Amino acid sequence: MKRVVIIGGVAAGMSAAARLRRLDEEVSIVVLERDRYVSYANCGLPYHIGGAIPDREQLLVVTPEHLRATLNLDVRTEHEVIAIDREAQTVEVHDHQRGSRYTEAYDILVLAQGAAPLRPPVPGIDHPRVFTLRSMPDMDAIKAIVDGGAERAIVVGGSYIGVEVAEALRERQLDVHLIELQDQVMPLLDIEMATDLRYHMELHGVTLHLGTAATSCADVDGRIAVTLRTGETIVADFVVLAAGVRPITSLAQQIGLALGTTGGIKVDATMRTSDPHIYAAGDMVEVIDTVTGEPTLVALAGPANRQGRIVADQICGRDSTYTTTQGTAVVKIFAMTGGATGTSEKTLRRLGRAYRKVYLHPAGHASYYPGTAPMHIKLLFAPEDGRVLGAQIVGYDGVDKRLDVLATAIRAGMTVFDLERLELAYAPPYGSAKDPVNMAGFLAANLLRGDVAFWYPDEYEQQSATTVFLDVRGPQEYAQWHIPGAVNIPLTELRSRVEELRPLNAKPMRIYCMVGFRSYLAYRILRQHGFEDVATLAGGGRTFTSFYRTTLATGAPGIPFVSHAEEDLAAQMLLDQ
Amino acid sequence: MKRVVIIGGVAAGMSAAARLRRLDEEVSIVVLERDRYVSYANCGLPYHIGGAIPDREQLLVVTPEHLRATLNLDVRTEHEVIAIDREAQTVEVHDHQRGSRYTEAYDILVLAQGAAPLRPPVPGIDHPRVFTLRSMPDMDAIKAIVDGGAERAIVVGGSYIGVEVAEALRERQLDVHLIELQDQVMPLLDIEMATDLRYHMELHGVTLHLGTAATSCADVDGRIAVTLRTGETIVADFVVLAAGVRPITSLAQQIGLALGTTGGIKVDATMRTSDPHIYAAGDMVEVIDTVTGEPTLVALAGPANRQGRIVADQICGRDSTYTTTQGTAVVKIFAMTGGATGTSEKTLRRLGRAYRKVYLHPAGHASYYPGTAPMHIKLLFAPEDGRVLGAQIVGYDGVDKRLDVLATAIRAGMTVFDLERLELAYAPPYGSAKDPVNMAGFLAANLLRGDVAFWYPDEYEQQSATTVFLDVRGPQEYAQWHIPGAVNIPLTELRSRVEELRPLNAKPMRIYCMVGFRSYLAYRILRQHGFEDVATLAGGGRTFTSFYRTTLATGAPGIPFVSHAEEDLAAQMLLDQ
Repeated sequence: MKRVVIIGGVAAGMSAAARLRRLDEEVSIVVLERDRYVSYANCGLPYHIGGAIPDREQLLVVTPEHLRATLNLDVRTEHEVIAIDREAQTVEVHDHQRGSRYTEAYDILVLAQGAAPLRPPVPGIDHPRVFTLRSMPDMDAIKAIVDGGAERAIVVGGSYIGVEVAEALRERQLDVHLIELQDQVMPLLDIEMATDLRYHMELHGVTLHLGTAATSCADVDGRIAVTLRTGETIVADFVVLAAGVRPITSLAQQIGLALGTTGGIKVDATMRTSDPHIYAAGDMVEVIDTVTGEPTLVALAGPANRQGRIVADQICGRDSTYTTTQGTAVVKIFAMTGGATGTSEKTLRRLGRAYRKVYLHPAGHASYYPGTAPMHIKLLFAPEDGRVLGAQIVGYDGVDKRLDVLATAIRAGMTVFDLERLELAYAPPYGSAKDPVNMAGFLAANLLRGDVAFWYPDEYEQQSATTVFLDVRGPQEYAQWHIPGAVNIPLTELRSRVEELRPLNAKPMRIYCMVGFRSYLAYRILRQHGFEDVATLAGGGRTFTSFYRTTLATGAPGIPFVSHAEEDLAAQMLLDQ
Repeated sequence: MKRVVIIGGVAAGMSAAARLRRLDEEVSIVVLERDRYVSYANCGLPYHIGGAIPDREQLLVVTPEHLRATLNLDVRTEHEVIAIDREAQTVEVHDHQRGSRYTEAYDILVLAQGAAPLRPPVPGIDHPRVFTLRSMPDMDAIKAIVDGGAERAIVVGGSYIGVEVAEALRERQLDVHLIELQDQVMPLLDIEMATDLRYHMELHGVTLHLGTAATSCADVDGRIAVTLRTGETIVADFVVLAAGVRPITSLAQQIGLALGTTGGIKVDATMRTSDPHIYAAGDMVEVIDTVTGEPTLVALAGPANRQGRIVADQICGRDSTYTTTQGTAVVKIFAMTGGATGTSEKTLRRLGRAYRKVYLHPAGHASYYPGTAPMHIKLLFAPEDGRVLGAQIVGYDGVDKRLDVLATAIRAGMTVFDLERLELAYAPPYGSAKDPVNMAGFLAANLLRGDVAFWYPDEYEQQSATTVFLDVRGPQEYAQWHIPGAVNIPLTELRSRVEELRPLNAKPMRIYCMVGFRSYLAYRILRQHGFEDVATLAGGGRTFTSFYRTTLATGAPGIPFVSHAEEDLAAQMLLDQ
């Protein structure tokens, strides 16, 4: 009888075990899990702390007893593998329940240990009030201290887990400080796309310390004092470290399995490691990025589960293979939703890849039907053929839907021209006849077909002294906020006043409005009136101010503050692009 | 100067006009609209009656004055085209505002008159209390009578508009009767998928008269009496006809333009009619179905808008073309959402096409996170290569999202194997690590790979007398409801009791549970124990009872009533398929 031993009983490991049993009644399946629980809902941990999931048992999806009864799995919790003998095909197991050790033989070994939280090398980081949040016991410890009346918490790291924990602790009325090395929350997003999330977190009372880091931790009468690079010291009841994860590869390294350049375990498309008897799956393996083709590490539940299934298929001699990971992810931050799929502009820049981009701000559904708000979309695509490279969306309603549509488009290798043609489900409570994804396609296709030229917020400071900024909004909007020195001719007067601009024709003309629609119409008019060096501001004043509020702070060089709450979406509601 | 005359100023016509102006500042664009309003939000009409959109002005997206100011369009409302002279390239226009007539010349004519409500040939249907709902005046008339204290309404037709109007009138506390010719609401869905919507409408107080029709209408002291084929007569304050639409082709027919077999105007991929100077777009044209390749009529806003854009492109000499329509649509019915994309089983049967199908009932998002409920998915796909042919979804949260993902997959020509690999956005408030769409792919791929054999509710009555029905749920669930004569062996006991079934091995064995997961595991166990003629009930008891509650009614031949509220989703929450 074939013996399969799986190390790790959460996403990848348990998917592999369950699928393996369905495919093969005869194989012996042993799951060795270091912790006390298997197959628990680790993505739900922050929500039990915050109270959204009041019943802890809800997170314990399944017990070892149930797995034995339904799937005939031999699941051993608190059993830690401390060594692997590749020659003998055995693992040495420490049984923490009995305090004993034993050796288990395998024909096939599956590594599914996942990733461990990074612990920055900061003096005092081993303080007992410094927690991570990867397991049920982690959650229990944090929840106990909150239930015990903690008043202030520090979260280190502003990515998915960090912002989820910050939200959860605010729901429990704690004073929450979040420290993030980058000058933005959600560093996986490009910086201008993170602005709204940042202000939304502040609106909900999270104190953000961006672009800085903790330099030391120290005990203060049982509480903990964290000192920042800025010199500031924050005293809190506890700290949650959410500064990223790294693959757990110590066992793999001990036995000389090949690692990739990222530090993850190297596997082929069948999820096999450099040892033909050993597979690996989940957060610990290096994968190939769908868009860039580069090796990468992606710690996400979806890919982990699918990789586990493929391991089971392979063990049973099936030909299923894993292709690539595109890193589709989403996060809830209070009332907002933000997420991304495919690659980001910062990654494309780092790799020196060519790309084009558009921004838009459509409503989540028909704006005349209640319960919607603008979402902010950034679409990245290939200049040569329009292939979709990545998308980022931040907003309120319908954000996750458009992320999933774009994730599917990326997986299918669709172009922006395909996005124009997508036929999505429309009724006023759900969308618009021209869905935000169609609109993104229209904008991008307009750009690639040469029907529009954009200028971008980050080009503002490189504009020559002779650049003419043309604001085509109404005089009231202009009075409220405008780019310094901009000429104001409302779109509705442009045709009749175009001769006023004629003397400026030789100069670069940079048009803008609030969201980009009126200035696009103005662009079309001016181009057809013989103006040649004209461009319209991508994303309008909305994206422009998101960019500068973040990188230069409010009131920075020539960029007056504008309240996004006052943004005028009338033009966008009017007609399509 | 080129003169373009567009007949019709709503979705297709106004999209064509706006895009045309953006592409060409010089062309003369005249929009002739028979009604008083252009470019209004006709999909929002029921919601103003119901009160969800309190402000009528919200529906008037744009005025002719605004269109002149921003897009230099010559929009003439209450101007009806009464004749076209193809030779002279002129239209004869009746100006209802001035009561005068005039002739307008065109170089290019665009027909975008849309579709008109069908009026069944029923005696008395011209009663002044019989309304349709396609325009602002229609809406105003219905709203006035509701505001005036109407107490009972009859809606004829149970498709999108009919159910939206029924909901709106219930929101206004009217007693609502809905009459539908088919034995289901939402006839675009297959019947078993419409069951939940039917019961949900009844739960919200709509009286349904399914499988019948109005045979006559008569005045009763200013109210209206509608007699049904059943003999029943309902007296109401008014009737709303929502029995479908037909393309408005009288003008096109007068001038001899070619029509398709469906009665819609025949156009080529450039949206050009049989006259090279005349284009047509929107509800009035015949299109090709994405999946079946058959000609069809689809009255949806999304395709109409895109066709309008293509007309504009073509007029400007661009090569954009329209491909096909897949009929993606969604409807809100009180708290539920239902919709479809691609083709249905009834259409595939009618055309004699080969297909396979799966059913599943996943939660809208992680079941441990609050605010979700099971959705019911039907996926249709090609037996030979797994290409997705159609999907129908009914449920509460996340239904529109999965419809859009599947609509995108169909547009991309994806297979069920591609659905397995989709990488969608997961966090507990939005989805599951194995998204419902992935799960649908797993089930379908299992079927095509031969890892599972399904039996379907409609095969129940054809089962031979020797068929063994095996219920693998717990004894309590069995006591609550089971298929008559079924043997009960809970999944958790199946491995140890498999020899009890051995004497039955020669007989067909049809396994089931509540949603299909436990019976799938049982199928895998029995197959590997040498049982050959076994199959698992697709969709489980959940789909089975949906099918029989609809077609045979509660308590019909051998099918006891089961409350869907009690459905056991524990197995599904446990692990994936």
